[in-house]
Amino acid sequence: MMQQHTTSLDIETPGSGLHEVTARIRDWTAKAGVQTGLLTIFCQHTSCSLLIQENAAPAARRDLETYFARIAPEDATRYEHDDEGPDDMPAHLRAALTQVQLSIPVMEGSLALGRWQGIYLFEHRRRPQARTLALHLLGK
Amino acid sequence: MMQQHTTSLDIETPGSGLHEVTARIRDWTAKAGVQTGLLTIFCQHTSCSLLIQENAAPAARRDLETYFARIAPEDATRYEHDDEGPDDMPAHLRAALTQVQLSIPVMEGSLALGRWQGIYLFEHRRRPQARTLALHLLGK
Amino acid sequence: MMQQHTTSLDIETPGSGLHEVTARIRDWTAKAGVQTGLLTIFCQHTSCSLLIQENAAPAARRDLETYFARIAPEDATRYEHDDEGPDDMPAHLRAALTQVQLSIPVMEGSLALGRWQGIYLFEHRRRPQARTLALHLLGK
Repeated sequence: MMQQHTTSLDIETPGSGLHEVTARIRDWTAKAGVQTGLLTIFCQHTSCSLLIQENAAPAARRDLETYFARIAPEDATRYEHDDEGPDDMPAHLRAALTQVQLSIPVMEGSLALGRWQGIYLFEHRRRPQARTLALHLLGK
Repeated sequence: MMQQHTTSLDIETPGSGLHEVTARIRDWTAKAGVQTGLLTIFCQHTSCSLLIQENAAPAARRDLETYFARIAPEDATRYEHDDEGPDDMPAHLRAALTQVQLSIPVMEGSLALGRWQGIYLFEHRRRPQARTLALHLLGK
Repeated sequence: MMQQHTTSLDIETPGSGLHEVTARIRDWTAKAGVQTGLLTIFCQHTSCSLLIQENAAPAARRDLETYFARIAPEDATRYEHDDEGPDDMPAHLRAALTQVQLSIPVMEGSLALGRWQGIYLFEHRRRPQARTLALHLLGK
């Protein structure tokens, strides 16, 4: 019989950059004991986001961070909105360019991630933040 | 017992920009009476898109609109495709950079949106358009 | 009664660019015989991605390819990561800017795609690649 599981995953980010959350999400999914299903990860914030990317080469992650800092730079002269500081508006832009939500099939009891795929919380604010991901798993 | 609900949401956009649809989507979801589930919003167009963003500061929305107009500008010299006018190809590009689909968990009878998150239809064409979002809700 | 269907779709890409997969995905979905449901497409790679875009004008697809080549260009001086060649890091960036996953409602036995929407595998590597999409369909 089809079942649903939900939880909130609290994540303390140490500052801007890609923070891997694959293991925590895989562990929670495994515990639910679902063989076939669909896992949805939903980021409840507008200044951090989700990204599935290369999990092997740290240089690839650094290039990703540098790239998003370049296409949506901190620059006080560009933005009207700066209530929370100069890193706030670029954070919203970098979040808009990436993902607020990811759904990953569960097959044979495991997330159907490719061999080189890791799940990352992409923190776009400079300072440490307390973040929450809502998880929803459906299956049997 | 798990149930499915579907509808088509018609939206008249007054021109380019971020148009909030949170209340309409929340109301439809609430009426379905689902306690735990997954709501999927699917945009049936290629020149407008979906975005979850900051719902408090109008300046943040203006900066988002300005940003996407800058990274995917109207510029006849850049694009081969202009069958529907100079705002058509940039519209496809801005749609490609944002979302055609969003899935949001339903927990305790409500969409699991963060406090500052609003759901927006991002119209990329200049003139008013008739748009349709397909909604699918699964849960119980 | 709610059912789940899963498969892996193997796709040989001939090189970089947008490769339409709508017919293959529509055919598999139709065979499952689901009237109402949710189809999820998950790309198991980090150097190609998914995009729903205009299916009528080839010029629009060429402009999309040109655009992503321009905003995330090949340029050895920009990137630290080049283990797999100069087209590798731009491929990760173009994948990060588009989609790793798409969920599409099924209504009245068909994918709820808009009239002008096609589903594309966006290959970002230059050489032919063997790619896999994980498909998950839920419904009845």
